[in-house]
Amino acid sequence: MKKSLILLFLTFTFFSYQEILTAQTSKVSTQAELQEAIFNAKAGSEIIMKNGVWNDIQIKFYGEGTKENPIILRAETAGKVTIEGVSNLRIGGKYLVVKDLHFKNGHTPTKSVIQFKINNDSLANYSRITNCVIDEFTQPNREDTDHWVELWGRHNQLDHCNIVGKSNFGPTVRVFLNGNENVYNYHQIVFNHFGPRPRKGGPHGETLQIGDSYTSMTPSYTNVSNNFFDKCNGEVEIISNKSNFNEYRNNIFFESEGSLVLRHGNYCTIDGNVFIGNDNSEFIGGIRVINTGHWITNNYFYKIRGNEFRSALAVMNGIPKSPLNRYNQVTDVVVAYNTYIDCKSPFQFGVGTNIDKKDVLPASEIRSARPERMLLANNLVFNHEEDQYPVVNYDDVGGVTFKNNYLNSENKSDVSNDGIRTSVFEVKKISKDLYVPTKNQEDVYHGFDFETIKTDLFGADRQKQNSVGAITLPITGNPLLIQKELYGTKWFSTEASNYKPKTIAVSSAKSLVSKLKSAHSGDILTLNSGVYKINATLIIDKNVTIISSDKGKKAELRFATGVTGFEMHPKGVLNLENLSLKGDKTQDAIVTLDKNMSKAFNLFIKNTEISKFKSVIKAYKASFADTIAIDNSSIKDCLTGILLNTEIDAKGDYNAEFVFITNSTFDQVQSSVLNYYRGGYDESCIGGNLVLKNNTFTNCGKADESGLLIQNHGIVNVDFSDNTFKDNPVKEIAVLWGEKGQKPVNNTMSNSGEIRIEQNLKQKLMY
Amino acid sequence: MKKSLILLFLTFTFFSYQEILTAQTSKVSTQAELQEAIFNAKAGSEIIMKNGVWNDIQIKFYGEGTKENPIILRAETAGKVTIEGVSNLRIGGKYLVVKDLHFKNGHTPTKSVIQFKINNDSLANYSRITNCVIDEFTQPNREDTDHWVELWGRHNQLDHCNIVGKSNFGPTVRVFLNGNENVYNYHQIVFNHFGPRPRKGGPHGETLQIGDSYTSMTPSYTNVSNNFFDKCNGEVEIISNKSNFNEYRNNIFFESEGSLVLRHGNYCTIDGNVFIGNDNSEFIGGIRVINTGHWITNNYFYKIRGNEFRSALAVMNGIPKSPLNRYNQVTDVVVAYNTYIDCKSPFQFGVGTNIDKKDVLPASEIRSARPERMLLANNLVFNHEEDQYPVVNYDDVGGVTFKNNYLNSENKSDVSNDGIRTSVFEVKKISKDLYVPTKNQEDVYHGFDFETIKTDLFGADRQKQNSVGAITLPITGNPLLIQKELYGTKWFSTEASNYKPKTIAVSSAKSLVSKLKSAHSGDILTLNSGVYKINATLIIDKNVTIISSDKGKKAELRFATGVTGFEMHPKGVLNLENLSLKGDKTQDAIVTLDKNMSKAFNLFIKNTEISKFKSVIKAYKASFADTIAIDNSSIKDCLTGILLNTEIDAKGDYNAEFVFITNSTFDQVQSSVLNYYRGGYDESCIGGNLVLKNNTFTNCGKADESGLLIQNHGIVNVDFSDNTFKDNPVKEIAVLWGEKGQKPVNNTMSNSGEIRIEQNLKQKLMY
Repeated sequence: MKKSLILLFLTFTFFSYQEILTAQTSKVSTQAELQEAIFNAKAGSEIIMKNGVWNDIQIKFYGEGTKENPIILRAETAGKVTIEGVSNLRIGGKYLVVKDLHFKNGHTPTKSVIQFKINNDSLANYSRITNCVIDEFTQPNREDTDHWVELWGRHNQLDHCNIVGKSNFGPTVRVFLNGNENVYNYHQIVFNHFGPRPRKGGPHGETLQIGDSYTSMTPSYTNVSNNFFDKCNGEVEIISNKSNFNEYRNNIFFESEGSLVLRHGNYCTIDGNVFIGNDNSEFIGGIRVINTGHWITNNYFYKIRGNEFRSALAVMNGIPKSPLNRYNQVTDVVVAYNTYIDCKSPFQFGVGTNIDKKDVLPASEIRSARPERMLLANNLVFNHEEDQYPVVNYDDVGGVTFKNNYLNSENKSDVSNDGIRTSVFEVKKISKDLYVPTKNQEDVYHGFDFETIKTDLFGADRQKQNSVGAITLPITGNPLLIQKELYGTKWFSTEASNYKPKTIAVSSAKSLVSKLKSAHSGDILTLNSGVYKINATLIIDKNVTIISSDKGKKAELRFATGVTGFEMHPKGVLNLENLSLKGDKTQDAIVTLDKNMSKAFNLFIKNTEISKFKSVIKAYKASFADTIAIDNSSIKDCLTGILLNTEIDAKGDYNAEFVFITNSTFDQVQSSVLNYYRGGYDESCIGGNLVLKNNTFTNCGKADESGLLIQNHGIVNVDFSDNTFKDNPVKEIAVLWGEKGQKPVNNTMSNSGEIRIEQNLKQKLMY
Repeated sequence: MKKSLILLFLTFTFFSYQEILTAQTSKVSTQAELQEAIFNAKAGSEIIMKNGVWNDIQIKFYGEGTKENPIILRAETAGKVTIEGVSNLRIGGKYLVVKDLHFKNGHTPTKSVIQFKINNDSLANYSRITNCVIDEFTQPNREDTDHWVELWGRHNQLDHCNIVGKSNFGPTVRVFLNGNENVYNYHQIVFNHFGPRPRKGGPHGETLQIGDSYTSMTPSYTNVSNNFFDKCNGEVEIISNKSNFNEYRNNIFFESEGSLVLRHGNYCTIDGNVFIGNDNSEFIGGIRVINTGHWITNNYFYKIRGNEFRSALAVMNGIPKSPLNRYNQVTDVVVAYNTYIDCKSPFQFGVGTNIDKKDVLPASEIRSARPERMLLANNLVFNHEEDQYPVVNYDDVGGVTFKNNYLNSENKSDVSNDGIRTSVFEVKKISKDLYVPTKNQEDVYHGFDFETIKTDLFGADRQKQNSVGAITLPITGNPLLIQKELYGTKWFSTEASNYKPKTIAVSSAKSLVSKLKSAHSGDILTLNSGVYKINATLIIDKNVTIISSDKGKKAELRFATGVTGFEMHPKGVLNLENLSLKGDKTQDAIVTLDKNMSKAFNLFIKNTEISKFKSVIKAYKASFADTIAIDNSSIKDCLTGILLNTEIDAKGDYNAEFVFITNSTFDQVQSSVLNYYRGGYDESCIGGNLVLKNNTFTNCGKADESGLLIQNHGIVNVDFSDNTFKDNPVKEIAVLWGEKGQKPVNNTMSNSGEIRIEQNLKQKLMY
């Protein structure tokens, strides 16, 4: 991407921040020494923290450096100073630089890990955090909110950092704009590696938020350029823009389940970014547009296959005269010179329209204001497999002008005027994920102010070589879309380790307990057949597989009275295969911690019998499973079944993202066979997924007070098919959510109540 | 004001637009020649319109000039080319200059008199209207909406123009921002003389509006500097700011009944302006603040005696999460270094709060959001007569910080912290209306970014001489607040003419009719005593006084059957004194035109008897009286009385601004004794004034179906005192509006129904 710019930037960085030989360099090894060094620091001072673990330390770094002589706080060796425990860093003053620190194994006691202010009287300006890592420095309780980097003041910079693994509430990085001290900030957020950030299950999982709904009129001028957003799956908004005049340039959005969302604020520039999806995910999105005056140019989209909110270009309907915190109408937005390769229906308009709900929602919630004075021009759409619907319009698009957009499929969309032209052209693969037409399509439209779109995605001068789409020919220099070495530090990586899992044979309950404890994450415990009488709960705090060595003869784990079977800890991944789990109805089979479930767990159960438990799976409040998959298993004679129903705050959260229950039997589960619940509603996340397919339910639900066999209240995505229900004494088998397209398919029911579809769920609005 | 800047500007003007000797100068005298000259014009062309009247002409002036060689369209002699009749001017292109034209005696057939675009494909950029006059070029029907100057495009200029006497609906000058072509406009509106603009009676009478509620997020950067707003009385907003980053500098607001209102939009600069009121008016306001990020500095306020919306500094409460078209909360606003001399309670906060109406208004109308992070610092308040309430807070002001504000009165306001200091200091009169402290008060507060307030009202460097207040000492150079010669053209004036009114004796009906016709505006007709039998309606289209020559023997005007008495035409001012008007119940005594009442009329009746008419005064729809005053007169034996009740559209309009009925008697008026009506409601204007004082009503209202003797529905200001009501067979005498503070005082009632107070009027919201 625009390599000359990058070089310029690196050069600038080199000269301006290269250590300057100064009279005053202090090397410190204790908190007291650090404090004293900070107290004594002057322009040009350098404070070096000795290598090692710095535990439970709250650093307040303040001082007044100068442009030529900043005050520097750094690690003795980059990456060898770790900040751990209950710790944080606040900076206040001018021309301060912090570098080379590694935050891990801990969390902040305040609302932020790194904060560009000490307090309201001491903000940071012209200061910089660089070459640092914040690595799973997440709150023990996922429901506790924090931010990992808070930018305040003006002219600050966050660069070359890795920020990974935030699983609790709150945007990872947040720019604050409240107060004149924080507007016109010109912050630089550049060359960072963000993510992966795991799915959060509910709102407040943005990777970057700039402003809030109260600053939608505020000039920000934050520059977010050349960052790598790597599987940032926290929620539907990877970036939530909530202020004006921000620039997003040359960033990579790699397989991130969300979009760059222009939620509030106006006049943003989104230029030269790369959005990469894949064949499997409908959750990876592109750019979602709300508000006025944005320019979206030179972006490259590959395999973005999402729909509505998550389409490559999602243009929302606004609320007429919208309240400050809701949806303004889209006006005066320009989308030009973008390329869409193998994206599904990349242009979607009127997204979020809910005119049909005007009888059930207040007028101030009805999104009926269509885009006005919007221009789509010179965009290129290519699909290797024909996509005849480049445009999806959920509402009228009369306010959108199309000019000189080219696609290679026949266009059967409602919108098929002369501005969307089908043309025969070929593309060529230039590098990984990058396809470029074999020749320039030079018939471009010259819109108002289009002369300001000077270059293409790779920085080529459009006055010399021009074409529809993000890339013009010839491409000179390096055509790689992603050069990972540009982003984050050089000394930290989230790449998978090289550990080779071991298979460990187990033949007694005692050895099961001890081997489980000593196993390395990834190991497989194989159990000889026979009965294992377990007297202590099995703790799962790593990825472990427990499997019978003889597929035909299942090992039986028999849990003593009152002893919980498995206890899932943060990041625990439990694979059970070919086992039999037995209780005596006094214990739960699989339970989460009742607090401090800081990170998600996963559960995969295959060919396994589970019987005589108080509950099969029980998730405590604030716990979250990314995936629970039960396949080819039987659940029998239990008091309750699978309980994922503790998020009752009506704030849009839920206990599990994906629940697959397939090819299994449920027999004599007395109540709550499955209770998978989402309270409240907003549109910030995937909203839960239930696949209930090809199962048989017999004699279940007789003690259930709800009268419902399967409870899936508020879960957005449901596949309910090919199941058999027999002799279940319930009023209804399930209530499906019509608005979300849920419907039962090919289920067989006898003596078991009905499956009902409710079009509009009764919901408490969250705002 | 900042004279060096003015000089610089004039110099720039001189060089850049001074006529350049060009090859191509065309003098045109017909519309066809003009069209041809425009068609042939090139950069550097000058088109000269020959002196004379150009009637019914719609000029489309287009072309592409250059910065060095604009295309000029001008009058042969400045002011000697008049554009009359049904005419207008549209310009489109680049570097066009129009100068020296005079629009009068007509109106535009379109929505604008001068428009900086020909159509949406041909906007003006870098173009200029200068040294022109638009003089009462108002629509025949006041209810027809237009603008006199519409600015579109970018970098256009309106300067040295006089724009006077708009009496119909619509802001005088309007800047449009819808569409990317019109944002970042950097228009210059400078050195103009705006006004007088008469009271409109209802909304839509702004002198300048920049944007609308749909552009409240849009960057405008219009510069409004060095203009003279002269009695701009159209409505409560002299200027309605509805976009961002506009600047208002060094303007004079002279006895203008309204305020500079930051209605929508943010981050405006209001610096170095002068607001001048007087002892008599509570309608002349200052600055009304809504929204975020404004800086209000170096302004001088003299005798601003308004309250609430019309106070010198009115800071409104917002609506939480306000809809786009309502009231955002005030945040991050700075008010510093302003001077308030003889203003009444200049600082008013929480203006517009209506928390007490939360049961009768929808939540989206409740203004409960108080100002936040607002700073008032270094302001100076001086009152020759002690004002102990510099601050009025209609709601809590916890979000406002006060620093180093000084006043010379004891402060008994609720807000009386250390930031508002009483101090003994003196002021000296330096020039007309300008009072300055005798020495600098140098203890100033240094707030965030205060170093950007570099100069004072007169341009003195605050780094060299600083003081609280708008003016620092010493003042060097010319200390005049107003130098009228700076504003508008040199060849046009609205100053009163030197005509000396004549007194004309009249002794017969015939001579009355003819002398009235030939009289000059201002003349006085004196009638000998006796009976004048009038067979033709007397037309009043100028200011005329009709008076009996012998005060003791009233002349009697007796109108023939079916002949209306007086017919009021636009701008008609009728003074009747010591007369007797008589009808035979078949005619109206005084009536307006039934259409095309383009301008206001006035009516002053003194010591006069009016009897036996169908109606006494009857105003047709769209007619408007500035003042109707009846004093010491008697009205007797009429079918109806005073009918000012035709504005029934519920849009906030009404038929008369001031109605004074004093020391008079009403006897046997059968219905509608007084019906003074305002339908609908908004806060854009004075809202009508009724003074009903010391009158006697006897045997009136017996045929009135309303059951009300005096009808004043929707009129905002009512003085209802010292009247006597006797034997009027009505249910109620009047209903007064409690919320507006209306109450009866010292009235005597017998056998006449009651006076009732209704706290909250039932109103239809207009938005």
